[in-house]
Amino acid sequence: MTDDPTADDAAADDTAADHSATGDSAGDGAAEDGRERPRTPAENAQLALLLDVAGTPKPGNVDRARDLPDLRFEHFLAGAVGSGEGLRRAESGAPVGLAFERAVEGMRHQSGGNTQFGCLLLLVPLVRAAAAGELSPAGATRVVESTTVADAADFYRAFEHVDVAVGDPPADAAALDVRRGSDAIPALRERGTTLYDVMAASEGDGNAAEWTDGFSRTFRTADAILADDGPVPDRVARAFVGLLADWEDSLVRTNHGPEAAAEVGRRAAEARGDPERVAELADEFVAEGVNPGTTADVVCAATFVALERGVEV
Amino acid sequence: MTDDPTADDAAADDTAADHSATGDSAGDGAAEDGRERPRTPAENAQLALLLDVAGTPKPGNVDRARDLPDLRFEHFLAGAVGSGEGLRRAESGAPVGLAFERAVEGMRHQSGGNTQFGCLLLLVPLVRAAAAGELSPAGATRVVESTTVADAADFYRAFEHVDVAVGDPPADAAALDVRRGSDAIPALRERGTTLYDVMAASEGDGNAAEWTDGFSRTFRTADAILADDGPVPDRVARAFVGLLADWEDSLVRTNHGPEAAAEVGRRAAEARGDPERVAELADEFVAEGVNPGTTADVVCAATFVALERGVEV
Repeated sequence: MTDDPTADDAAADDTAADHSATGDSAGDGAAEDGRERPRTPAENAQLALLLDVAGTPKPGNVDRARDLPDLRFEHFLAGAVGSGEGLRRAESGAPVGLAFERAVEGMRHQSGGNTQFGCLLLLVPLVRAAAAGELSPAGATRVVESTTVADAADFYRAFEHVDVAVGDPPADAAALDVRRGSDAIPALRERGTTLYDVMAASEGDGNAAEWTDGFSRTFRTADAILADDGPVPDRVARAFVGLLADWEDSLVRTNHGPEAAAEVGRRAAEARGDPERVAELADEFVAEGVNPGTTADVVCAATFVALERGVEV
Repeated sequence: MTDDPTADDAAADDTAADHSATGDSAGDGAAEDGRERPRTPAENAQLALLLDVAGTPKPGNVDRARDLPDLRFEHFLAGAVGSGEGLRRAESGAPVGLAFERAVEGMRHQSGGNTQFGCLLLLVPLVRAAAAGELSPAGATRVVESTTVADAADFYRAFEHVDVAVGDPPADAAALDVRRGSDAIPALRERGTTLYDVMAASEGDGNAAEWTDGFSRTFRTADAILADDGPVPDRVARAFVGLLADWEDSLVRTNHGPEAAAEVGRRAAEARGDPERVAELADEFVAEGVNPGTTADVVCAATFVALERGVEV
């Protein structure tokens, strides 16, 4: 999964023994080099969750400078910490559904509610792809296309951990409404529905669209972050406004309707590139209760890709 | 180390198998309960590192609202992520020196330099104590008193990862100057110096004082955080000012001398309880280059203790 044996928690005791054995030499440069490692994919994913909430202004979202009434900065910090175990499982090759369910279960141990469900839905398959050395549209697509009915069942279980805002399913798919949680699992099994199938059937959901079209906005936004300069949280914030201008936010559409979503995009396009106007927009969106959460999810996933591709913090 | 078998990364595959085996029942409430877990000690330590930098205002330190010229908020986020592996090793019972060295090595993968060396020096033995169910002055003292020469050697190795501001050692201890890094290890072995001995010889260092007097300021500050109310980052910021008023910051003393350290304490005492005056102090300390880093270390350790004792985020 990684070239560095010290990244494996299970090997901690062995490594300690090796370490003592080499510790007798006065200058242990070789041992030092042997223990060097960059961040692992799971660590980059956790850092992406944190950079995502640290970037400011991110109009309508909690960021370094703004809280929402019942959703505060520290809820995202705790969510990122709690997600770690599930992300490490994804890195170790655990099934996507199980790793996602574990990450969401860990995330929920804070009082803000759903902080990073959507980000994790994108990050888990991307971490799997990165750990396999295939962090590309094709590599990520291979991961999501190989998901199973068991992955779908774990995805449905994850909905029992937190309240997630979702739209109504198509009329012929009421049995598979994600809001049914585990109650929908028999129907999943009966129909042989994989997690990829669930995403393919989720019309109009921005995160599901990433799953089924090779994470195109994620990789495009990662390129924008890599091409930008300055501190990474500033790049994240600019990428957020750019994506919001170019692409309808499906959470805004779910909560406020298609016209509101289009209007949010127009306002982002108008403000883009003007820091003062973007800051005003941030205050306006908070006041109006507009929360472009899907855009934040994709920018978070893009931040992960940018970190894996070498952007330095 | 923990009552919950799912908290053990090494058991991920077994857990996946268990999970599939129980997944056939439609309502899996029992399995849900079985997989419940609060944050582990290593997770609470990582969250403490994040809450510590999120609290604001913390005069003279990077916080949610303030960066220093070459040390920014995101460097602390990356440091907290990178520390995770070392903290998990401490939780699993790895030697204090090795777990600390691993945490510092992971922390350094960001461009801000030394972000959390001092915090980790306090957190690692506290995580060990918490994992053993003994998070108390006596339990923490048992952990630090049991450190060995090998722990001391790893502590010295950790100094090679980052630049740490330290005072001059006593004249008779030049061979053990921590700034010598690994070069001091033969002298440590020759003298049989344990990590506890190193701390006991570090007169005037605030973190070393915590090691040798039962983490008294850490536990006292944890009580203050628990007795306070409101969001945890706000409690952390208030605890910081309170400790700075009551106790000389040894990093300020090292960098600016004893008179400057006393004056910093007087100004903190005068501002305490007046949010506007504390915010002014934050701007003044940044402008003056005053960085009370040891106080931040102890408050971070206290935040960990408060999280372990049930303060909710």
